[in-house]
Amino acid sequence: MTDYRRLRVALLGAGAVGSQVASLLRQHADELADRAGARLELVGIAVRDVDAKRDVDLPRELFTTDADSLIVGSDIVIELMGGIEPAREYLLHAINSGADIVTANKALLATHGPEIFDAADQVGAEVYYEAAAAGAIPIIRPLRDSLAGDRVQRIMGIVNGTTNYILDRMDTEGAEFSDVLADAQRLGYAEADPTADVEGYDAAQKAAILASLAFHTTVPLDAVHREGITSIDKSMMDAARHAGYVIKLLAVCERLTEASGESISVRVYPALIDRAHPLASVHGANNAVFVQAEAAGNLMFYGAGAGGVQTASAVLGDVVSAARRHIAGGVGVGESTLANLPIVPVGRVTTRYQITLEVDDQPGVLATVAGILSEGRVSIATVEQTVVESAEGESGVARLVIGTHKALEQDLSETVDRLAASGVVERVVSVLRVEGN
Amino acid sequence: MTDYRRLRVALLGAGAVGSQVASLLRQHADELADRAGARLELVGIAVRDVDAKRDVDLPRELFTTDADSLIVGSDIVIELMGGIEPAREYLLHAINSGADIVTANKALLATHGPEIFDAADQVGAEVYYEAAAAGAIPIIRPLRDSLAGDRVQRIMGIVNGTTNYILDRMDTEGAEFSDVLADAQRLGYAEADPTADVEGYDAAQKAAILASLAFHTTVPLDAVHREGITSIDKSMMDAARHAGYVIKLLAVCERLTEASGESISVRVYPALIDRAHPLASVHGANNAVFVQAEAAGNLMFYGAGAGGVQTASAVLGDVVSAARRHIAGGVGVGESTLANLPIVPVGRVTTRYQITLEVDDQPGVLATVAGILSEGRVSIATVEQTVVESAEGESGVARLVIGTHKALEQDLSETVDRLAASGVVERVVSVLRVEGN
Repeated sequence: MTDYRRLRVALLGAGAVGSQVASLLRQHADELADRAGARLELVGIAVRDVDAKRDVDLPRELFTTDADSLIVGSDIVIELMGGIEPAREYLLHAINSGADIVTANKALLATHGPEIFDAADQVGAEVYYEAAAAGAIPIIRPLRDSLAGDRVQRIMGIVNGTTNYILDRMDTEGAEFSDVLADAQRLGYAEADPTADVEGYDAAQKAAILASLAFHTTVPLDAVHREGITSIDKSMMDAARHAGYVIKLLAVCERLTEASGESISVRVYPALIDRAHPLASVHGANNAVFVQAEAAGNLMFYGAGAGGVQTASAVLGDVVSAARRHIAGGVGVGESTLANLPIVPVGRVTTRYQITLEVDDQPGVLATVAGILSEGRVSIATVEQTVVESAEGESGVARLVIGTHKALEQDLSETVDRLAASGVVERVVSVLRVEGN
Repeated sequence: MTDYRRLRVALLGAGAVGSQVASLLRQHADELADRAGARLELVGIAVRDVDAKRDVDLPRELFTTDADSLIVGSDIVIELMGGIEPAREYLLHAINSGADIVTANKALLATHGPEIFDAADQVGAEVYYEAAAAGAIPIIRPLRDSLAGDRVQRIMGIVNGTTNYILDRMDTEGAEFSDVLADAQRLGYAEADPTADVEGYDAAQKAAILASLAFHTTVPLDAVHREGITSIDKSMMDAARHAGYVIKLLAVCERLTEASGESISVRVYPALIDRAHPLASVHGANNAVFVQAEAAGNLMFYGAGAGGVQTASAVLGDVVSAARRHIAGGVGVGESTLANLPIVPVGRVTTRYQITLEVDDQPGVLATVAGILSEGRVSIATVEQTVVESAEGESGVARLVIGTHKALEQDLSETVDRLAASGVVERVVSVLRVEGN
């Protein structure tokens, strides 16, 4: 066996991902040493409670509650605690102690990324974060390295497993949101408090990280437009299916080219997507990132977006990269902000829409609706009108499903307000964006 | 504008990919300089005929027929000539002149990879070859870096666009192989001499490269079992569709665990795959690589497998990586042969099969067939028997479609021979492997 140099690896956190990372580091020690060119010695695991029950068996003597002492003298610090504090403080300590860091902490990177990256830059440390962007799916290196000679135009990602699981079951079973959510909570696919997932906060953090990398621009979390999926009901799902669409929660990161120059838009919302689009067949809790690049064309990266052992794979890939850098030099993943494109608010984005209205079933109503749309600079691509049946037969109400050409978000939203106030519209049933070509 | 160090970039070949690389290098020079940390100066393009017509406009003074003079003094040499000689000779010259090399030459790497990599190792040069594995799809870095802490169990790749285009059209249009091939040739999806594609040679080269990387083992091209798609006809396609399958030409790279230790198998053949499998929805000339890893689970990488500008994206990503290494040090993609697992012949692989037979429609025939299978250690999972109708009505012939459990390839092939010679089997219609779970 080759006599490799030893690198001291400290682990912060021993939850679902952390315990798997610790276990794999020990189980595959020889193979990892061969690949990294260094022996990765797990010197300790910092946790809040040394005696807490873990997912896997690990020697008790590895555990400590003293993260700061563990960090000092470590070559690589892996942070898998989650949350902002004390994770931020520990990572800054690790960087300033001369360690490279590996983290899966999307909340921290999306909110304090620049602070962490700047601190690393100042001391020549590297920050690896493959697991923070889309779980086990390798997306950081493709974006940073493989596409380094290309220009990313657009990313559409299904980056939250919980919401994809819920929407997929609503689509395939015709179930209601609340029923599927309750079931997902029972099965462990959703948290007891599902807010971070179903309101799109988790997806927004990942969108900020992906957009930063793809467009070489710092994207603060509050520049990401965010809508969740709680308003999606069975009738919207059924209507989408009828029209050849499926509803997915998408993280859209887009390069916009206007006369005044380039800018970007980053947004998370449920959208209609054609069933023939590769993203439409991403089922269950799986994730996928669809990338459109100027030269490479359409690429898709698919895999598990979460899960302890799956995410551990991405973390260990980063640990091996960090170790190789210790041995052979070179640069890590880092961040790149050299383009620093302006980020436009969602109102300045153009998208196609599907607007569903209930209107009075009377002559002239369609003309009125079409007039309001036209005045609002929203051009109609398709219209389908059906009579709404009530229990007593004719209801006097018709349903209009209007597909638009690309329209400015701000124009659309003002136009929908005018429609709602127009007197001929009984109810705005839904307004959904249509993504993908 | 930052005053970057200049790196001299030499290009060998100006075909579909080469001319796009040259064009993009010039068009995006500033952006590439920012990303690479160095200005990438295209110092010349070596071609056979300086006056040949090119796909894009490039200054005439860049062209030269003297590749060797161009190579001397270059920091990065991009080889996009294809073929073995003189590409091999030029690359060795480039390496020994101190350049890092970028190549898309799968034929060369699959046959002379070790020679090239060894030469590079001896002088500390790096070899980048993202475009040689699956066109524009970023797969090298995910395998080498992102999955460096994981263990790849299996790769199933659709890695040849021409054959996927042909099979997809046969599937969706119910067309015959020869008709679609002729059409593909007319449309530029297939070469005038389609042998390299339809006989699986191109896929086998890519399989050798992917398997080498995934299993840290040198895989010589002649260790790759190879079958093409010329035997696939409309009736097999129809039968596959009827049974819920689609036929795809797959490159399968598999880690085998036997009592005697680990080994690998690398093979290319047309196989049945369930329509619900992500690979089944890879349409047209697209490629996809499905990776099963111990920890990460199932991953898929999807995109354009060929095309001048698409492949240029992968080449430029490599050029930027090579430039970063010149500036910041570190290691490139290289090869890794540290596991050097034995490669087993296809006879020792176990797979599921679908065997279609025409048999005498008489009592006892199924029992005879089942007996031969059982003696041959081939276990039956499903049987479907239908009477073959002839123009005159009853033909006296029945069709048996037998799905097997996993069986040893060698057992299966001997058993099929015995079936053919058994007297009750009129005709072995097809024997196809079934891949994916």
